[in-house]
Amino acid sequence: MPAYEPASPEQVAAIHEVSLRILEEAGIAFYDDESVSILREQGADVGDDSVVRFDRHLVEELLTRCPHVFTHTARNTDRSVVIGGDHVVFAPVAGPPYVDDRTSGRREATYDDLVTFIKLTQATPYLHCQGTEIVVPNDIPFHERGLDIVYAHIKHGDKPIMGHYPVRVTAQDSVNMARIVFGEPFVDEHHVLLGTINVSSPRRLDDRMLGALKVYARANQIVMLTPFILAGAMGPAAVLGTVAQANAEALAGIVFAQMIRPGTPCIYGPFLAVVDLQSGAPVFGAAESIHAQLLAAQMARHYGLPFRAAGSYVSGKRPDSQSGIEAALSMFPSMLTRPNFVLHAAGWMENGLTTSYEKFMLDLEMLGVFHRYAQGISWDDDEWALEAVLEEVPPGGHHLGTQHTLARFRTAFHRPELFDYESFESWKAAGATGAEERAAQSWPALLERYEQPPLDDAIDEELLDYMARRRTEIDPAEFQ
Amino acid sequence: MPAYEPASPEQVAAIHEVSLRILEEAGIAFYDDESVSILREQGADVGDDSVVRFDRHLVEELLTRCPHVFTHTARNTDRSVVIGGDHVVFAPVAGPPYVDDRTSGRREATYDDLVTFIKLTQATPYLHCQGTEIVVPNDIPFHERGLDIVYAHIKHGDKPIMGHYPVRVTAQDSVNMARIVFGEPFVDEHHVLLGTINVSSPRRLDDRMLGALKVYARANQIVMLTPFILAGAMGPAAVLGTVAQANAEALAGIVFAQMIRPGTPCIYGPFLAVVDLQSGAPVFGAAESIHAQLLAAQMARHYGLPFRAAGSYVSGKRPDSQSGIEAALSMFPSMLTRPNFVLHAAGWMENGLTTSYEKFMLDLEMLGVFHRYAQGISWDDDEWALEAVLEEVPPGGHHLGTQHTLARFRTAFHRPELFDYESFESWKAAGATGAEERAAQSWPALLERYEQPPLDDAIDEELLDYMARRRTEIDPAEFQ
Repeated sequence: MPAYEPASPEQVAAIHEVSLRILEEAGIAFYDDESVSILREQGADVGDDSVVRFDRHLVEELLTRCPHVFTHTARNTDRSVVIGGDHVVFAPVAGPPYVDDRTSGRREATYDDLVTFIKLTQATPYLHCQGTEIVVPNDIPFHERGLDIVYAHIKHGDKPIMGHYPVRVTAQDSVNMARIVFGEPFVDEHHVLLGTINVSSPRRLDDRMLGALKVYARANQIVMLTPFILAGAMGPAAVLGTVAQANAEALAGIVFAQMIRPGTPCIYGPFLAVVDLQSGAPVFGAAESIHAQLLAAQMARHYGLPFRAAGSYVSGKRPDSQSGIEAALSMFPSMLTRPNFVLHAAGWMENGLTTSYEKFMLDLEMLGVFHRYAQGISWDDDEWALEAVLEEVPPGGHHLGTQHTLARFRTAFHRPELFDYESFESWKAAGATGAEERAAQSWPALLERYEQPPLDDAIDEELLDYMARRRTEIDPAEFQ
Repeated sequence: MPAYEPASPEQVAAIHEVSLRILEEAGIAFYDDESVSILREQGADVGDDSVVRFDRHLVEELLTRCPHVFTHTARNTDRSVVIGGDHVVFAPVAGPPYVDDRTSGRREATYDDLVTFIKLTQATPYLHCQGTEIVVPNDIPFHERGLDIVYAHIKHGDKPIMGHYPVRVTAQDSVNMARIVFGEPFVDEHHVLLGTINVSSPRRLDDRMLGALKVYARANQIVMLTPFILAGAMGPAAVLGTVAQANAEALAGIVFAQMIRPGTPCIYGPFLAVVDLQSGAPVFGAAESIHAQLLAAQMARHYGLPFRAAGSYVSGKRPDSQSGIEAALSMFPSMLTRPNFVLHAAGWMENGLTTSYEKFMLDLEMLGVFHRYAQGISWDDDEWALEAVLEEVPPGGHHLGTQHTLARFRTAFHRPELFDYESFESWKAAGATGAEERAAQSWPALLERYEQPPLDDAIDEELLDYMARRRTEIDPAEFQ
């Protein structure tokens, strides 16, 4: 399906122009000494306050170094994915400290929950990237979590994985563990990790994020630059200003990554939502977010950068109707941008504070619809069903038994698995279960379909040795 | 927001061409003697089997008679709406025999329920047309219902109304009652009723629908031609064939309306969904429905006809997550077509068999978002918030207190009323209510905001007299 592009080329140029003014006049703060040195060396104008101003020619020159399309390589190369062009990659939610299911309710997530979600992610055909911290493993000491998260992804899945990202040291551990799995020369030449780098909007990259960015860029791994803006708080209470600011912030990070290593694969990855201006609460699925995201996607395409779009964001506390509406009003507009990467595509609940088992399954149901949607409209001759329409079926007849229907009844339409299509009477007789209850039954069923992918014993042992050593070495102070 | 148009002009021409083949070669059955005579007189080729074949030149000539834009006049002319062009009109669900609310459950709907929904429709800013049978008043004899439905709409609301449509006699009663309210000369020159005419797909207009069509067209009222196709059953298990068939059927009805009265205001109004080909159940929000509807809208625009798009269709039996997802995946694609009329925009549940009080409110919440969405992206200078972004807010600061935000914090973003944006702790302390429970509290609140619009006593009395007379006259056999 073609991208939906509401802005004219002149309007795209106007956003670009304002973004350049932000970069030239206001600048972006880089709170990291080494980064500031690099920026100065490579021609940016660095103030005493670490605010960096970028000349437009410098920005435009550095952007020419970005690859438009690249491969995110999986441990099982059959599952590697292409990022860019017409390709769409879905990844699960990242970051929630809480987990929720219908039986046990909301609670602090554990390593077991993380492993379960990795297995669900591995088992479903609708997620293509395993993501990272699908839930926070709260039962592991904070400074060791990066090790365990990356290990869990390697051990239990073989789709492409993300690196853990909060600080330099975890990014470096992620890279080191990837080198154990893939071999160092392979990692130098292939992108086996994807790291999210959050801009602490407005206009600020902090030392933790810059530390991680430098590690991933130097290791030739994928960097996703994510201005995190709730319009009205971290950006202005206006669509255009928010998009221009996010654009400037994303460009600053991407340009810096190109300074570190020309050709660093970058994803243009803004997180855009709005706040309720009377309470300060985040609002997802808002009309203004939809507008902003459509514009941001046009900017990414303008620069030839892969675009990361909104996931199934909701404020809802339960996988109820509010969450269903919010998730669909976040995700469907994302599909319209023809996105290249969708983080948080499944499981997100409660402003991203909770990963819900049931919502994870409901989101997968929606992703199934989007898979078919994204395949686009087929214009094959057979799609006209000419013989059936013109000759076989009389006025008032039906197509259920035509040759055409019989030949394609298994594949013509995507078939949801979880949703209920029974008659009211059958539905009632079967217990009148709502979507949340059906979802509660469906994730254990998906888990049963999980198969552990093979992992070489020697590699497994080397990973465990590395982790054991690093547990004693890592200084928790690095995470302050 | 611009329309989203995935088909090229050549592809639109291809659908047009196949539709003409359906009209020329296969034909459409018109099961009504007078209609057949009119069609024959005006140059269509009528077979002995009442199947009518239309020459392409006849179709194209008659289509030139259709108005592109017209006004649907309300009793309160301040509430009249324009149908066509950039205008979008939302109307509530029509037709469900059951009603459901959280307290009383699913039950046969009554006249009281109908009146309550009319009041809710009148009270909300998000519905612009009152619709017709928002629920079936089962406690009124079948053949008298048309009278009571139209009266209830006139008495309790002053937005534009639909005529009741199942057969000629109710259509004529709708017109006669409108003449009492507006005066006969006024009705001759203004469109005060909108009547849905269902094509009994495939390729069939029956005597009941043709009877109603003739009444509305002769009275210069709005006719909405609605091929009702669940692809795989009433149309082929294919997107293109379904769209071409629906297009041919809509054109046949619209062309016939132009034969009855040149200039009859027509809406191109297909109802398109798919069936689960393994169970035969209808499926809403499907990718294939989205594809089909986007194409159908392009066909309507190709002919310059106002387009009616999908409402908040769901299969769900409760206003749960499934219903939320289905409704959003039906309605948001509709918004992308830049529709002119959206029937079933609020209240639809359980395949259209039930009107849900709670879902009605949840749908209104979504319509609120779409109101803002449809206003489009503002490119006013103020939207850039240049001073705030470039000067006022430092790196890492926030926009909550800027001059720009303070000047617009009440209006910058649309504010949902029903959805929950509390923190988890506040939400839990307040009873951990889900969306369905909040919706159950919200419709009585909306009902309290309802104000009965004035109706001239003499008109009211004349309507009641007319109805009393007609109750004794109408022959129930007309409805067989």
